[in-house]
Amino acid sequence: MWHSAGGAGRMKENRIRERLLHVARGDEPADIVFRNAEIYHPFSCGWETGDFAVKDGCIAGIGEYRGLSEIDLRGQRVIPGLFDAHVHIESSLLTPYEYGRLVLSHGTTTVVADPHEIANVCGKDGIEYMLAGKSETPLDIFLMLPSCVPATPLEEGGATLTAADLKPFLSRDHVLGLAEMMNVPGVLAGDPEIEEKLALTRVRDGHAPLLTGKGLCAYVLSGLQSDHECTVRGEAEEKLRRGMYIFIREGSTERNIGELAPLVTACNSSRCAFATDDCHADLLLGDGHIDRCIRSAIESGLEPEIAIRMATLTPAERFGLSDRGALAPGRLADFCVLDRDADDFRIRQTFKRGVLWEDPGKTGRTPRIIQKPFACSVPDIAALQLHGSGKARVIGLVPGQIVTEDLRFDLDTGAIPDTERDILKAVVCSRYRENRAGLGVVHGFGLTEGAIAASISHDSHNVVAVGVSDEDIHRALALVIKSSGGMAAVTGKEKTVLPLACAGLMSSRPFEEVVRALSLLRAHTERMGAVPDPFMYLSFLALTVIPSLRVTDRGLFDVQAFRDVGIFSGA
Amino acid sequence: MWHSAGGAGRMKENRIRERLLHVARGDEPADIVFRNAEIYHPFSCGWETGDFAVKDGCIAGIGEYRGLSEIDLRGQRVIPGLFDAHVHIESSLLTPYEYGRLVLSHGTTTVVADPHEIANVCGKDGIEYMLAGKSETPLDIFLMLPSCVPATPLEEGGATLTAADLKPFLSRDHVLGLAEMMNVPGVLAGDPEIEEKLALTRVRDGHAPLLTGKGLCAYVLSGLQSDHECTVRGEAEEKLRRGMYIFIREGSTERNIGELAPLVTACNSSRCAFATDDCHADLLLGDGHIDRCIRSAIESGLEPEIAIRMATLTPAERFGLSDRGALAPGRLADFCVLDRDADDFRIRQTFKRGVLWEDPGKTGRTPRIIQKPFACSVPDIAALQLHGSGKARVIGLVPGQIVTEDLRFDLDTGAIPDTERDILKAVVCSRYRENRAGLGVVHGFGLTEGAIAASISHDSHNVVAVGVSDEDIHRALALVIKSSGGMAAVTGKEKTVLPLACAGLMSSRPFEEVVRALSLLRAHTERMGAVPDPFMYLSFLALTVIPSLRVTDRGLFDVQAFRDVGIFSGA
Repeated sequence: MWHSAGGAGRMKENRIRERLLHVARGDEPADIVFRNAEIYHPFSCGWETGDFAVKDGCIAGIGEYRGLSEIDLRGQRVIPGLFDAHVHIESSLLTPYEYGRLVLSHGTTTVVADPHEIANVCGKDGIEYMLAGKSETPLDIFLMLPSCVPATPLEEGGATLTAADLKPFLSRDHVLGLAEMMNVPGVLAGDPEIEEKLALTRVRDGHAPLLTGKGLCAYVLSGLQSDHECTVRGEAEEKLRRGMYIFIREGSTERNIGELAPLVTACNSSRCAFATDDCHADLLLGDGHIDRCIRSAIESGLEPEIAIRMATLTPAERFGLSDRGALAPGRLADFCVLDRDADDFRIRQTFKRGVLWEDPGKTGRTPRIIQKPFACSVPDIAALQLHGSGKARVIGLVPGQIVTEDLRFDLDTGAIPDTERDILKAVVCSRYRENRAGLGVVHGFGLTEGAIAASISHDSHNVVAVGVSDEDIHRALALVIKSSGGMAAVTGKEKTVLPLACAGLMSSRPFEEVVRALSLLRAHTERMGAVPDPFMYLSFLALTVIPSLRVTDRGLFDVQAFRDVGIFSGA
Repeated sequence: MWHSAGGAGRMKENRIRERLLHVARGDEPADIVFRNAEIYHPFSCGWETGDFAVKDGCIAGIGEYRGLSEIDLRGQRVIPGLFDAHVHIESSLLTPYEYGRLVLSHGTTTVVADPHEIANVCGKDGIEYMLAGKSETPLDIFLMLPSCVPATPLEEGGATLTAADLKPFLSRDHVLGLAEMMNVPGVLAGDPEIEEKLALTRVRDGHAPLLTGKGLCAYVLSGLQSDHECTVRGEAEEKLRRGMYIFIREGSTERNIGELAPLVTACNSSRCAFATDDCHADLLLGDGHIDRCIRSAIESGLEPEIAIRMATLTPAERFGLSDRGALAPGRLADFCVLDRDADDFRIRQTFKRGVLWEDPGKTGRTPRIIQKPFACSVPDIAALQLHGSGKARVIGLVPGQIVTEDLRFDLDTGAIPDTERDILKAVVCSRYRENRAGLGVVHGFGLTEGAIAASISHDSHNVVAVGVSDEDIHRALALVIKSSGGMAAVTGKEKTVLPLACAGLMSSRPFEEVVRALSLLRAHTERMGAVPDPFMYLSFLALTVIPSLRVTDRGLFDVQAFRDVGIFSGA
């Protein structure tokens, strides 16, 4: 409630506070009193039996109160609404409205989103789109501004966002600061453009996978305050000690809780939070959101009370959102009722601003989307050909991680696909420019027939494809490009497509349909012999800020050397 | 370093950051490298063996660095500089310079001071005096603005500070927010003047002794975020749960660590800090400052690593001072070396901004003081007479606490002093107005002869005296009033005086002389039969914001009823 503190906002705050004061004192009835709750307090990581009173969507008091209505919770456990410290909503493939539908049901009431994907495609319009999204769903969507659009100076995506472009957004409601600063070399070099962005705000999220020692010190003193890229316990421990908040990430392919949860203690839980970063809609529906993180952490041996603190108060403190994160007077009445009949940690009900969240289901409403026609044609099949032989650099997938390996294979391009050794061709085709396609070779997808393609391809979101034959790759690319965005799997004449009408990143359809399409895609790719979640690996194949080897619309890219390389050049 | 973030400040920050960056990366030597330290990290409450590099007074990095100079710490333990979350520097009886001398030697590098006392005497000039004080000592003095000057609308002290008076100070460097809001009834009633003050800033300290239940809820939702007045474990626990930071206080007479330390856990240590509130110079010299709090907490069973967190990172986080509280890149090189030869927790050395603090001793320098001549004459002895008999309301001292009891005694004023039952006369004489003296009766001082008087008398700082005879009281009052401030003990012709030339609150002399004078006063009051620390009790005798019974320049005051009462009226 005290978050926005300027002029008119403060007057409104004062009026709300005055009304709450009457209720808190017991002079006037609350809107609603929740009786017989077992209330979790993140300040002490403990429980308290009692009633609490809600007025105007805020907690007025805890104790014996009268209410215009009352709900008896019969001793059920109540925790503050869950909080995702760092997420790209676009990765769910859903519009903000549909995303809200899904995660609210899982107990999430606040997310800090980085509209990095849509900003790479649509620039400032993309940020505006996400800002408007927060008014379509009861879910509180706060934004951190994308710091690296494009991800590197070498990329040519849909937009470039300078410090001057970002600055006006910082005074906007629900904008908190600067999102994950991925340009680690730029930070360490004191790049003036980066400095200018860092100086825009005092709230700055980091992104520094495997950074250690002197580099980490330089990065931290440059003002980066958090990291969600830790994959190794020692890495997270060092970053904690250097003063960073650690957002332990559990996304669709990025699963770090098993490794990192043992690091969390009662003492450092005030510096550790959860983040989902990138999660497809099917994972959100089937396994959950931050509730899933809590379950995973508990399975990894963490006390539930510590895990809940990480999912509530800690991120609220980290982002200075003193109006939430706990069930305490003056804070938002965002809370969850736990399912006491479940064997593990399950959310039974979510209340947002004191109101029970009830999913309206598929309403048939037409969502607001942002259209961005592709500027490229489908490349000629000849442009997909690869020549040469010898010791080749091959991108190696790492199961469950977004890092890749820089592998060496003796290779003859004539022998690709080499399904024996699981070596396939990868193609990245610019969606913003004509006739620009880059080729690479990848190990680990497992496909034995057909091809897959998608317009989700971090961070520029060109069209990326992997397949066993140029013909299949060509067909898959065509399916995606012709519908200005989508995910496609083809095998001969069989095809499965999920169109992504919203900027080529998100579906315009209800989550039920998206999940169904993903299921069809999964079934299809399984028949093709693919690893689980092949589209998630596909989407990171061109991500030039995460080690080691990537492919872009210019060809192979060595992340450590930070330059384009030839397939047969670096052996 | 990132604290002040506006215009010129930010450019300066950027230059400092650039220089630090070169050192952090290892490209340039540090100013100084501290080798072989056992470094405490409050983020994880653990220790790390290593070296750390300091440049421009900040930590550039932790790891292997080169330095223009080097200090080998030979495995000694190093912790961040200690932090006092709430203190009235005036209560030390020292000028800011002398206060800095004392507490720096005990490891304190940052205090958040509320210039409440000098503001009650001198108004805005008093705040300016304390603000200027920070430039006289390496100690970092931050201010919270006095929220209640005068303490209650009934008081007539030296000044009245409205929201409009306070507002300009909030944009000043080193001003953090609004200090302890003592007007609890005003807050609960939604008093518009209080509301106006609360709306000035987002950082607001509370002061709500024994407040509980609905009142506490109303107080917390009004925006008060901390409390340093807890004396009972259950009270502190409830306040923690309602979202308040708890500053556990250990002052000269207010000692709450023994009661409250058992409440602190690894989990809530991020919400608990230490405060000294009011400490005389002799206690600071003899027993220490925040180091003493840590020792007391450890003696009460707290893990040292938890206690150190409370004394470093927690208050830094609470006040948004991300430039300190830990030894981490970009933060100030404020730290202490622990004495490994000591049996308990002792500070061996203090480094402020990377420089070893060495007390220059008594330099003979003339301190900056603020002079405020008293406007009153010494009252006639006739004005000290008390009449009546019957059931009387008597102020009862509570050993070790600043609360008082509202006692009932059958009394004949003719029989005062009643040294048998330890009942003495108390006088409060306005220092701002002529001919205004109020009388009360007090139990617990223990004096069997003579009188004591002082111009330190929270919060209006009138002249307060307690004694066995009107003649002695008169002499003691005269000693204080004629020198426009001081502390005096008289027995017949024997007198001991500590003049307080700075606003009648602080001595202009070096701390060694003040401690010597306090020692003489103590010896004198001991001979008089007084309880330990009688001047501290004396100074709180007129404090109308702490229960239960007080005496003002108008006479007896019932804090709960919040009104003047007669000695024989309320039985």
